[in-house]
Amino acid sequence: MSTHKKEKFKQHILQLFVLLFGLSLWYMPIPQGLEAQAWQLFAIFISAIVAVISGALAILPASIFALGVTVLSGTLKPEEAYSGFSEGFILLIIVAFLIARGVIKSGLGKRIAFLIIKKFGKSTLGLAYSVIAADMLISPAFPSNTARSGVLFSLVNALAADSNSKVADGTRKKLGAFLMMSSMAGLTLSSTLWLTAMAANPAGAKMAEAFGVQIDYGTWVIGAVAPVAVLFFLVPWVIYKIYPPEVKETPDAPLIAKAALEKMGNVHKNEWIMGAVFIIMVFLWVMSGSCGLDKTAVAFLGLGILMLTNIFTLEDMREEGNALGTLVWFAILFSMSLYLNKLGFMSWLGEHISTFVSGYSWGIVYVLLVIAYVLIHYFFVSQTAHMLALFGVFLEVGLQAGVPGVLMALMLLYATNFNALITPQGSSANVIYIGSGYVEAGEIYKVGGIVTLVNLLIFLTLGTAWILFMM
Amino acid sequence: MSTHKKEKFKQHILQLFVLLFGLSLWYMPIPQGLEAQAWQLFAIFISAIVAVISGALAILPASIFALGVTVLSGTLKPEEAYSGFSEGFILLIIVAFLIARGVIKSGLGKRIAFLIIKKFGKSTLGLAYSVIAADMLISPAFPSNTARSGVLFSLVNALAADSNSKVADGTRKKLGAFLMMSSMAGLTLSSTLWLTAMAANPAGAKMAEAFGVQIDYGTWVIGAVAPVAVLFFLVPWVIYKIYPPEVKETPDAPLIAKAALEKMGNVHKNEWIMGAVFIIMVFLWVMSGSCGLDKTAVAFLGLGILMLTNIFTLEDMREEGNALGTLVWFAILFSMSLYLNKLGFMSWLGEHISTFVSGYSWGIVYVLLVIAYVLIHYFFVSQTAHMLALFGVFLEVGLQAGVPGVLMALMLLYATNFNALITPQGSSANVIYIGSGYVEAGEIYKVGGIVTLVNLLIFLTLGTAWILFMM
Repeated sequence: MSTHKKEKFKQHILQLFVLLFGLSLWYMPIPQGLEAQAWQLFAIFISAIVAVISGALAILPASIFALGVTVLSGTLKPEEAYSGFSEGFILLIIVAFLIARGVIKSGLGKRIAFLIIKKFGKSTLGLAYSVIAADMLISPAFPSNTARSGVLFSLVNALAADSNSKVADGTRKKLGAFLMMSSMAGLTLSSTLWLTAMAANPAGAKMAEAFGVQIDYGTWVIGAVAPVAVLFFLVPWVIYKIYPPEVKETPDAPLIAKAALEKMGNVHKNEWIMGAVFIIMVFLWVMSGSCGLDKTAVAFLGLGILMLTNIFTLEDMREEGNALGTLVWFAILFSMSLYLNKLGFMSWLGEHISTFVSGYSWGIVYVLLVIAYVLIHYFFVSQTAHMLALFGVFLEVGLQAGVPGVLMALMLLYATNFNALITPQGSSANVIYIGSGYVEAGEIYKVGGIVTLVNLLIFLTLGTAWILFMM
Repeated sequence: MSTHKKEKFKQHILQLFVLLFGLSLWYMPIPQGLEAQAWQLFAIFISAIVAVISGALAILPASIFALGVTVLSGTLKPEEAYSGFSEGFILLIIVAFLIARGVIKSGLGKRIAFLIIKKFGKSTLGLAYSVIAADMLISPAFPSNTARSGVLFSLVNALAADSNSKVADGTRKKLGAFLMMSSMAGLTLSSTLWLTAMAANPAGAKMAEAFGVQIDYGTWVIGAVAPVAVLFFLVPWVIYKIYPPEVKETPDAPLIAKAALEKMGNVHKNEWIMGAVFIIMVFLWVMSGSCGLDKTAVAFLGLGILMLTNIFTLEDMREEGNALGTLVWFAILFSMSLYLNKLGFMSWLGEHISTFVSGYSWGIVYVLLVIAYVLIHYFFVSQTAHMLALFGVFLEVGLQAGVPGVLMALMLLYATNFNALITPQGSSANVIYIGSGYVEAGEIYKVGGIVTLVNLLIFLTLGTAWILFMM
């Protein structure tokens, strides 16, 4: 058999295994205290997650099968199973996907990046800070950290190549490897900072609501800003120490950026429009909690203006099939996860886990839960799948142990982002960097592991104190 | 000013006009008998429709603005405005868009077409029948008649070129023009035949539900089958008489098809799978009314199988941005139209129109309504926009005049499809044929007008009698 056929054969075996796994769950005696419906939904949901984790199926077909089985078996009513598609926050994510395309197309993203490099790019460490700062500036309207990683990668890749650090001639360690690793680490922080910087964030906030915990745009960013600010300075420095670049000074980078900016010329009309839409949108999003504005409608209006001004065209739309794919699997898994909670599965599982930690103070339970949540990410390919599968249960256990709701929810949702570099496959945002060859997958386990540890420590100490103080 | 700038300037004037139109509606005194909310929603909705009809905006940005304004002005609650996104029938349309790609990719669509031509393609008229028959066979899983027109056009275009009927050398009338016109007319019939052959069909059926009229998959096809069968034979013959091809015999076409089939070789595994999925899906759709199966879930499972077998891949998904665009504008306009009805606008408008026709028997009102509905299509670019804007009002007026609900609803929904050739822009499915140059826009007004008249006459006479007899 050829390698390709072997791969395919292996995958079919995996698929068969997942099918058997799902069937045996479905037909096993229903645990005491659960409705049949809740147990069936769990069997379908966890089979889809296992299919994704094991690599038997991509997340889109796995979700599609899960949906078909859920509805046709009568486990959920059609309108329940499809409800996720009209969730405002999911539509917000999809619209922001499209707006992000406008940021790229208008040239504004590039200009911001070059401006920062021109200012701070004299040393390799300064470059790393610049790239991460640019990331943090554009991230509130870039809820696909995968898409953002594409933008940042192009930038870092150009910087590395311009500085004669290439993969082909064995000079990746001169500068490129360090910058790539820093940018990946930066993505974990930018995604943590804003409610709209990662697709799973608003989904988590919505799920928290079902547990009586309110998290709006302001709560999110206020809770994250202090630990992220510290980590912004700390993490690139740590990487600089444990994974040092061979070239430490880059006097040419600001000059390259300056030349590129001169080539770009004056700020184009489209950049002004894009910038104005962007700033107004983020401003209205931040204010949405207090003004009662609907974030999704704000995003739709922003997209409308970008279409009116031809910054985002019908032609551009044609290539956004991935946004549809995301909408489909995200809406499906979100609905299933929500109904697992509504049908009492989360509280049932939470009670069982809680018996293990009963007697401990809420502080200890809190720390244990966060650490466990981060470590479990070793098994997950998708940050969003991780959140959808486990956030509800962990939140439930924390609430039962008396952990303040906002603290527990925020920390778990932050952790969904700051744990992304724990493995090479821990976030789809990592993939493009590793694909370039600058960073080797094996190096992620070590350097990314340490970055995750630093993130975790700062969030558990400073972050926890800060949230308790501010909320 | 360059032509391009002039065009742009003209469009901005149009946009300004629509804005003023919308504002003056918004601020005018609210007509008696209406809630402010209903009037505001109408002002937004009709402005979006006017923007589309006048060419001020494409349907996607027009809908996006309408949604933003509706929600931010508080006219509808966010969850009401977004509700269309989780409507099962809209998701069904989107999934079927993706499945249609599988029909093309697997080669099954091509094979069916060639098989029919091999059998019936000896004369030019026979070819026209073959093309339409192929259309009718694939249409139940092809709810985008635009996409279907793309598939059929490629086929007709190849047939014309192979028969030395080309646009460039002035031989378009030999065979190409006639075949193209017939195929366009055929699309109006195939779209009428199946509930899932055009995006607006299930939307209309769902809207009818809100008026207490039940139309399921079976009702639809039973009501359409007799008049469509007659028109299938009649329409190409009428076109043959009034818009004759110069070449009437095509002895080579079956040979060309035969050669192409031989080149394709044995039926490929993917075609078997695609065919099986297709047949099972259509069978389950037809049975869905009596078995209580959810049509959308059936489609999702079908898509899942196509993904599992790599007939539809993640790569294919990436190019399906248009499906997302359709989902967005369709869901938005559908929700608005539905809430116009819920808020009492349709019955208010219906009552006012009804005073004009009061005193007439329901039969006369019925005929007048259907004729008016067809003629109004002169003003519409999109069949779906036409249906969403007017179907509810016309149905309401008919019901108030005592027309049997199923008859009124079915006839208006059939008319949404069979009126598509009344103008060149009457359906996006026409565009690709006219774009080829084989058919001139001006010819559509004459030939297409006669085709529409024939469709209308058969449906009003035989169709009406048939529906009354069967239901």
